[in-house]
Amino acid sequence: MTRPLSIGVAGLGTVGAGVVTLLRQNAELIAARAGRPIVVTAVAARDRTRDRGVALDGLRWYDDAVALAADPGVDVVVELIGGSDGPAKALVEAALAAGKPVVTANKALLALHGATLAEQAEAAGVALAFEAAVAGGIPAIKGLREGLAANRILRVTGILNGTCNYILTCMRDQGREFADVLAEAQKLGYAEADPSFDIDGVDAAHKLAILAALAFGRPVDFASVHVEGIRHISALDIKLAEELGYRIKLLGIAAQVEGGISTRVHPCMVPVSHPIAVVDGVYNAVVAEGDFVGRVVLEGRGAGAGPTASAVVADLIDIARNRATPVWGAGIAALAHTPSVPMEQNRGAYYLRLMVLDRPGVLADVTGVLRDHGISLESMIQRGRSPGEAVPIVLTTHECQEAAMRGALAKIAALDSVLEPPALIRIETL
Amino acid sequence: MTRPLSIGVAGLGTVGAGVVTLLRQNAELIAARAGRPIVVTAVAARDRTRDRGVALDGLRWYDDAVALAADPGVDVVVELIGGSDGPAKALVEAALAAGKPVVTANKALLALHGATLAEQAEAAGVALAFEAAVAGGIPAIKGLREGLAANRILRVTGILNGTCNYILTCMRDQGREFADVLAEAQKLGYAEADPSFDIDGVDAAHKLAILAALAFGRPVDFASVHVEGIRHISALDIKLAEELGYRIKLLGIAAQVEGGISTRVHPCMVPVSHPIAVVDGVYNAVVAEGDFVGRVVLEGRGAGAGPTASAVVADLIDIARNRATPVWGAGIAALAHTPSVPMEQNRGAYYLRLMVLDRPGVLADVTGVLRDHGISLESMIQRGRSPGEAVPIVLTTHECQEAAMRGALAKIAALDSVLEPPALIRIETL
Repeated sequence: MTRPLSIGVAGLGTVGAGVVTLLRQNAELIAARAGRPIVVTAVAARDRTRDRGVALDGLRWYDDAVALAADPGVDVVVELIGGSDGPAKALVEAALAAGKPVVTANKALLALHGATLAEQAEAAGVALAFEAAVAGGIPAIKGLREGLAANRILRVTGILNGTCNYILTCMRDQGREFADVLAEAQKLGYAEADPSFDIDGVDAAHKLAILAALAFGRPVDFASVHVEGIRHISALDIKLAEELGYRIKLLGIAAQVEGGISTRVHPCMVPVSHPIAVVDGVYNAVVAEGDFVGRVVLEGRGAGAGPTASAVVADLIDIARNRATPVWGAGIAALAHTPSVPMEQNRGAYYLRLMVLDRPGVLADVTGVLRDHGISLESMIQRGRSPGEAVPIVLTTHECQEAAMRGALAKIAALDSVLEPPALIRIETL
Repeated sequence: MTRPLSIGVAGLGTVGAGVVTLLRQNAELIAARAGRPIVVTAVAARDRTRDRGVALDGLRWYDDAVALAADPGVDVVVELIGGSDGPAKALVEAALAAGKPVVTANKALLALHGATLAEQAEAAGVALAFEAAVAGGIPAIKGLREGLAANRILRVTGILNGTCNYILTCMRDQGREFADVLAEAQKLGYAEADPSFDIDGVDAAHKLAILAALAFGRPVDFASVHVEGIRHISALDIKLAEELGYRIKLLGIAAQVEGGISTRVHPCMVPVSHPIAVVDGVYNAVVAEGDFVGRVVLEGRGAGAGPTASAVVADLIDIARNRATPVWGAGIAALAHTPSVPMEQNRGAYYLRLMVLDRPGVLADVTGVLRDHGISLESMIQRGRSPGEAVPIVLTTHECQEAAMRGALAKIAALDSVLEPPALIRIETL
């Protein structure tokens, strides 16, 4: 057995401590699979006094993460600081510049600066690995980039944010409203004190941008991802979805469409019979469709110290075994530059729920607007009757263009008899 | 880009033709991902005249597969002949002896001779790759052996035979009996003319033996796998399972248990809420449980030209990129030699369905036998009443040892009032 691979870990939060624990607890097994021991020899974190539940004596300690890159005893840098800029970015750049492989769980960094960092890694001839950045412990990056490498990928769909999936699952199971469940999730530690990064879809969008780059072999393009979160999802819409045979999930979808690649994150109605509809709670899932393989579903825990550490150490084992894959699946020179298609051009079916005054003519007004925008209806349900008062009306459409639906929606929202902002949820039959 | 990787394909059945088609159809994309073109230059098959739906002109043709290994223009040998011995084995041995990497979809070969072949591959320093041998297009080998490499695997469970899963799904959906559905599946081409390899669980057992070797890092041990098929599953038991909240699936299960590793293939009752319960039709699934990652589910098409070719070419891309992994996840010297635990020592819960004469005292006899073997009951249902005639009785047990259950079963089957051989199905809560 060759000499140990020496690791420097920057960031000793839950995940950092998890990586240290995993490398120790399964040391023998990891050495067998990696062909050599993998040992943490240096760490970087600001607070030396905090108890992280893991012994850190004997390790070289850096207050400045970037200094880790310059440590001659560190073979591989593991970046677990987080954040798209600041010390995380500085460290990764410094490590690559020093010719050291980098393993990171940082989706924001990859989504925003991945294109440049991939070029830097390729120029330096070292690995930039990030299995932990998408879907936690699920080997989604490896599965897609290597396992399905023979396929033209037609579409990748994912439940990519455990906080949102947990909240939506609780709302459905318990019939509760969003704000109520969010507050509880925050108490339980399943949602951050500032939850916007998760619930507004930004975290899922970072991950989707990375998956899209891998699936379609082009540099990551976060700016083109359409992003909506789950704040506006109501218990009523979840209930109505069930009645229509759907579940509401926050999905990230990257698909080859006419004119290029469409990337979007938003709540979706998914048929209950689809495997992704039953992925509940904090579980994540990635569904890939390839031209030869058909549909492949990968499901598992999307966050937490254990699953994330599992993915980080899988990357380290690849590095120890010299198993290398270009960041976006192909070398920079061989990447495609397929354009992104704006959301306005997306085609799909829609669920539209309105609160309207129960009086004659309302439906004629609404359906008239849809007709004027070339949108045809698949179904319409008025729930209950209470003349002169507010009742919900649910419409589902056939496939139409997003731009047309937005136009129609603005007109419908402005109708006198429409009392609240309409709820619009896209239907994805996948 | 370096010179093309030159492939020799032995066996031009559906899968062989699929590999040739895939390598041509996605040639550009594969070259980008592999870092060099991958081109079939030679083939081996007996019948030169048969139309395989793919152009074969210009390829070097061998009637004797073993000769492919000696072709100096072949860099990698792809073995798609099938069968655990004969030309398939001879070719793989010859290729490894010639220092050429081998890609095979042959589970029987791997299950029966994998231990020796792995030693030969390691000694020759070349790859023996077999992603296509287990679960078709699902990247299960890569997912388990590389993606979850940081974990101590506690259990691997799989739906590993599409024919059985298709038959069980039809039986459930249509309330039909096994023989009837099998005959139809044979007509439709979903089952072989001689179906015993699939329906008696042998094919699934080959795949499970391979998964167990990877999961627990030991040489493959097919002889220790307990194997039962689905011939004895009745429409009645499928219906009763649904009533109890279970689905019947043919599962392969490899688990770390007291005293070693238990490997078994048999019909199981699985809770409907488990992700594997909703994997229907020809789909396969592999569920791995790791100490850090938790539960990971991989699902996709387990057979067919496209999915199998996808897996074969993924292996070729790994070889083109020089990504190498030891056959059982660790080098031969680092493998464990954990013993296999015989089925008699397995512990689990059971579903037992009897056809008994509806007369006083029958239940006392049956439950008396169970008591005498130390088996405690979880539930008992008698379905319907018809004094003096046959009625079904369903018993479910708490966890007990297989040996005790077998002893009790022999005694129960011999009771006067028990009219047919009892149906015994293991309950797996996973």
